Amino acid sequence: MLKSLGWMMALWVACATPARAEDGYDLWLRYRPLPAAQADAVASKATTVVRDEDDETIRLAAAELERGLSGLTGRRIAGGDLGEGAIVIGTARSARIAALRLPLAGLGPEGYLVRSVTVEGRPVTVIAADRPVGVLYGAFRLLRIAQAGQSLDRLAIVERPRLALRVLNHWDNPDRYVERGYAGQSLWDWQKLPGFSDPRYTDYARANASVGINGAVLNNVNASPDMLTPAFLTKVERLATIFRPWGIRVYLSAKFSAPIEIGGLKTADPLDPAVAAWWRAKADEIYARIPDFGGFLVKANSEGQPGPGDYGRSHAEGANMLAAALKPHGGVVMWRAFVYAHDKPEDRAKQAYSEFQPLDGKFADNVIVQVKNGPIDFQPREPFHPLFGAMPRTPLMMEVQITKEYLGFATHLAYLGPMWEEVLRSDTYRPRRGMTVAKVLAQSRLSGMAGVANVGTDRNWSGSQFDQANWYAFGRMAWNPDDRASDIARDWAAMTWGPAVADPVAAMMLQSRQAVVDYMMPLGLHHLFATGHHYGPGPWVDDLARPDWNPVYYHKADRAGIGFDRTRSGSDAVGQYAPALAKRWGDPATVPEDLLLWFHHVPWERRMASGRTLWEELVARYDRGVAEVAAMQGQWAALRGRVDEQRHDEVSQFLTIQRAEAQWWRDACIAYFAEVSGRALPAGVVPPTHPLAWYKAVRTPYAPGNGR
Amino acid sequence: MLKSLGWMMALWVACATPARAEDGYDLWLRYRPLPAAQADAVASKATTVVRDEDDETIRLAAAELERGLSGLTGRRIAGGDLGEGAIVIGTARSARIAALRLPLAGLGPEGYLVRSVTVEGRPVTVIAADRPVGVLYGAFRLLRIAQAGQSLDRLAIVERPRLALRVLNHWDNPDRYVERGYAGQSLWDWQKLPGFSDPRYTDYARANASVGINGAVLNNVNASPDMLTPAFLTKVERLATIFRPWGIRVYLSAKFSAPIEIGGLKTADPLDPAVAAWWRAKADEIYARIPDFGGFLVKANSEGQPGPGDYGRSHAEGANMLAAALKPHGGVVMWRAFVYAHDKPEDRAKQAYSEFQPLDGKFADNVIVQVKNGPIDFQPREPFHPLFGAMPRTPLMMEVQITKEYLGFATHLAYLGPMWEEVLRSDTYRPRRGMTVAKVLAQSRLSGMAGVANVGTDRNWSGSQFDQANWYAFGRMAWNPDDRASDIARDWAAMTWGPAVADPVAAMMLQSRQAVVDYMMPLGLHHLFATGHHYGPGPWVDDLARPDWNPVYYHKADRAGIGFDRTRSGSDAVGQYAPALAKRWGDPATVPEDLLLWFHHVPWERRMASGRTLWEELVARYDRGVAEVAAMQGQWAALRGRVDEQRHDEVSQFLTIQRAEAQWWRDACIAYFAEVSGRALPAGVVPPTHPLAWYKAVRTPYAPGNGR
Repeated sequence: MLKSLGWMMALWVACATPARAEDGYDLWLRYRPLPAAQADAVASKATTVVRDEDDETIRLAAAELERGLSGLTGRRIAGGDLGEGAIVIGTARSARIAALRLPLAGLGPEGYLVRSVTVEGRPVTVIAADRPVGVLYGAFRLLRIAQAGQSLDRLAIVERPRLALRVLNHWDNPDRYVERGYAGQSLWDWQKLPGFSDPRYTDYARANASVGINGAVLNNVNASPDMLTPAFLTKVERLATIFRPWGIRVYLSAKFSAPIEIGGLKTADPLDPAVAAWWRAKADEIYARIPDFGGFLVKANSEGQPGPGDYGRSHAEGANMLAAALKPHGGVVMWRAFVYAHDKPEDRAKQAYSEFQPLDGKFADNVIVQVKNGPIDFQPREPFHPLFGAMPRTPLMMEVQITKEYLGFATHLAYLGPMWEEVLRSDTYRPRRGMTVAKVLAQSRLSGMAGVANVGTDRNWSGSQFDQANWYAFGRMAWNPDDRASDIARDWAAMTWGPAVADPVAAMMLQSRQAVVDYMMPLGLHHLFATGHHYGPGPWVDDLARPDWNPVYYHKADRAGIGFDRTRSGSDAVGQYAPALAKRWGDPATVPEDLLLWFHHVPWERRMASGRTLWEELVARYDRGVAEVAAMQGQWAALRGRVDEQRHDEVSQFLTIQRAEAQWWRDACIAYFAEVSGRALPAGVVPPTHPLAWYKAVRTPYAPGNGR
Repeated sequence: MLKSLGWMMALWVACATPARAEDGYDLWLRYRPLPAAQADAVASKATTVVRDEDDETIRLAAAELERGLSGLTGRRIAGGDLGEGAIVIGTARSARIAALRLPLAGLGPEGYLVRSVTVEGRPVTVIAADRPVGVLYGAFRLLRIAQAGQSLDRLAIVERPRLALRVLNHWDNPDRYVERGYAGQSLWDWQKLPGFSDPRYTDYARANASVGINGAVLNNVNASPDMLTPAFLTKVERLATIFRPWGIRVYLSAKFSAPIEIGGLKTADPLDPAVAAWWRAKADEIYARIPDFGGFLVKANSEGQPGPGDYGRSHAEGANMLAAALKPHGGVVMWRAFVYAHDKPEDRAKQAYSEFQPLDGKFADNVIVQVKNGPIDFQPREPFHPLFGAMPRTPLMMEVQITKEYLGFATHLAYLGPMWEEVLRSDTYRPRRGMTVAKVLAQSRLSGMAGVANVGTDRNWSGSQFDQANWYAFGRMAWNPDDRASDIARDWAAMTWGPAVADPVAAMMLQSRQAVVDYMMPLGLHHLFATGHHYGPGPWVDDLARPDWNPVYYHKADRAGIGFDRTRSGSDAVGQYAPALAKRWGDPATVPEDLLLWFHHVPWERRMASGRTLWEELVARYDRGVAEVAAMQGQWAALRGRVDEQRHDEVSQFLTIQRAEAQWWRDACIAYFAEVSGRALPAGVVPPTHPLAWYKAVRTPYAPGNGR
């Protein structure tokens, strides 16, 4: 006993050292011991893990169950023979599973079922699938239930993903700089690859698999052609090998002009046979190394990137040429619709639709067009993109930005689930009422969702503890676009902070995105950001080369009013939506106030639903935003002692930064709009801390993530 | 019992998860349980920690002792009352310490003593000092003894640092890019400072304190003037506050032209009263925030940096102007002697001496001139810098490069202790025989040693497990320049890998630096590196703008011979050394073969001590270098199972990379020198894997650390 006490002490000490403090590295896979009663309940349904197949992915599933259930129950749960309370995992290749005659074929390549059954007279839980990766997903699902402290009794779960491509887009450069990254450097240590396989690569793949993400585009859409050279492909091959057993395929962003830059050709014209041949040979070279390579992501003729337009060819002609090279290998082309021409005078919000909608039906069958959630660029609030529903004969995947370029970087707590849910549940009215964006995505033969990754070398992966929730929520919504942001928040909070605090943590999260909208850009305002890095407010900026780079282009505030007239009397961007929506959104009386200034230029004196004038309402929204952050600070302070100290301190400090920056946003915008409107502050409103000139003078040249 | 068993299991599981695996974050402060016998011995001498003073630094010392001794013994060792085996810590402000009448005043501001004594009739160990920081250093010293598994009986240690300034120079930019950094981003997260105090800042300070480092220059010597703006000074202030209790002062690299760039002045002429006034005001501003600010580090008129030379003033005039601004506050100026003019045709190895030696005695008394260990630039082997011993009336500190810009980046195992020891023990013969570089440093009224830091955001701090040893060794040698590299290696290995493997680990380390010299640049060759990033071989490079940027300038190989004639018949750089050395090194017959080609251009047919010709010897050295790496791989493989798996795997993979890159260096250099010499490979030598053209074609544009 003394001996074991000494051993316990040694363990206690080993675990107690600060380097062992919780720092967020474990993400939502913490597996800390549950309260005794819950632990006992879980343990009774998890006496052992039974696996008949030797498949690597199924081995990983078993290992994860043993690791997770051991951690949650505080007991050593390992592989063993069938017995009461066993967890039996596998596919029909396992005789024991096959004998159960489960409807596995109907689950598809990634689906699974988790069911309480009786095997050889013993009550057990079975996790079964048609393919090994389904077993892995099922294992993580069972662990999620246990982590939430819920019962493992009478389970009858059947799941299959609603979308086929669930991918992270990494805007990572070959020098490890991450464009719009706020979580350190790129996870990919190209200098040490392929020689060094950082264990973190495995942890990354495991975290993705735990939420159903099945693809990773490794490099920036503003792509270096060098990524397609043999020197880099050997490195990419190494990562693909590490990710494969976790069900994750690698993709690469392809620079359209690569045939010139690394191929020595004179042109990249997609209709030039030599160009097509070069891409075919390149695809063959890649698949010789990576048989399950996913394909290419392409940003073409956008923000200075080369593309088929340079040769008078259409996006379809460019995409289809690449698609032909990938087709024999089963790869796909993800072609971005995020385009706005350098010259076009047309409202930027209209350009993607104008350029792509006419191409509906012209894309090869292994091309999927990647459309941002909204028509501008990942703003805190945008209406859904008008292309959704408008290209019925073209597969569309939705691109969202997990990294918070426009929502306060890593230090602002902003849970994006509600923002994505808002878009996914939007009714496109195309072809008819009830056809939501989620349905549009799910119904196309090639389906998918892409998220611009927020992960990097920061110890907590995402730059903050709460930004992990956005990575998690993306995976959940890509698996099931109808999943609820509130349910996802509660699950994440229970897994990441503990079931006991899941509700208060989720409550904070659910109000956080509206808070950012309120203190940055309420009532449909957008793109008021400082130039380049987008850190902090710059509503006054009017000196950039292109009109549609300037905030004044977007808010159009003057002495009469504020807002972008996108009705028929203006740019008529609203006309790109289905008639029913165009009618509702085109009328300031019926458009939701949250989108008022997106679609309308409105007089300052206009009466709002609150009874306030627009000017009073605008100021009130800014004040509400700051108040909402203050409220979050209070809610978090109340959790001190109920979560581990190190992570609590980090979040507290970040909330203090957010509070100060919310005030900065509120003050700068109110000072500016008061000046352009020539209006005095409403009675009782606290004036900005500094004069407008002070805010205009703020310079933050080293803010992270700015493209270069 | 069952309950405690369950608890043990929970702990076991919590400790067993991979995220808890050893990743190197703990450095040499791991405090893992010692073997039972050693643990019992330590525990008997560490029953409790007794502290009477409430000083923050002394509290940290007590906490470190409790943490470390608890970890090492597996017992809970905490603060308590005096008893047998207690550890009593403090200064004379503690009545108990004062009563012992120890010679504390003689210890100076940073010295300490650790002594086995009897207090109130009980045998205890006392750690005492004149100042709190000495107590902290003493605590780490006692822990080092315990970590090595050595006895805490009959201790009688009296220590004081031989050098006053023991500083890390961080070549870190405001955007977190680290010039010549191979360990991730800068530790300083300027974007989140001052709002977020990353716990890692404390861990950094603690690690430095544990080896006696007492200063940190936070920013790159190629300095941004923005570092001196209020926006950054508030961030610097925060770091200074965190570092202070650990005995660490912050310094800043100052850009000499800052008065123009951020001060709005027309000139930065050091003799202009407005310029002097601006720097005085800036110093006052800094000290108002940071009362113990260390001072400025300046790189002037070197590699394009501005300096007093731009105004026809001397380095002394520039340094003294800054020194006058710092003087009232007790700050110092560290002025770098690393200069080589853009135009001067003079041998680059001579220029620092030519420019600075005549200034001896002209510097203010709070200026210390920072001289690199050798006359060129941190090459794998250089003779000591001729300025050491040549400026008797000027304080000189030695600058070494901990980060391995020229020794294989993070993936090559190269313990630098022997390199620094070689320089520190070099006899300058000035003013007389026996005056080693170490003595030159230690005797000056302002003394110090600076190391270009190798730490960054990588989890293991230094980019590799073994590079931690170079950080550690720098601290030890800065504290005592006569400390032995072999003793330091054994201490580090015991603390970092465990006492049981200390000898075999130290043995690998001690041969590693010579291995790098052999496979990169044997026999006094230097600067054969590829352009810019210095990653890989480029002995053929001859097309850079400045002659002394080209490897061919340094090796001067031709059909007749190889080497740089620095004798009287050549540049006479050897004439900058004391006559006795100039004579020995100036004669190819008496110069050490390791420096032969540094000082002499020698015919390929020359007979070497081995009996081989120079050409045969050169090839043999390259082969030996590769063989030495292979030997290290074998030694490390033998340690599998004797150290933790994750760190062992990482080192194994890095050694495989090093082996391949050693072969690359060997092959490329032999192929090149065979061509220029027109010589066939000696009989039995394995030819290079590829033809010379292949090596010349290698491009690695994304190699890290390149200045920008």
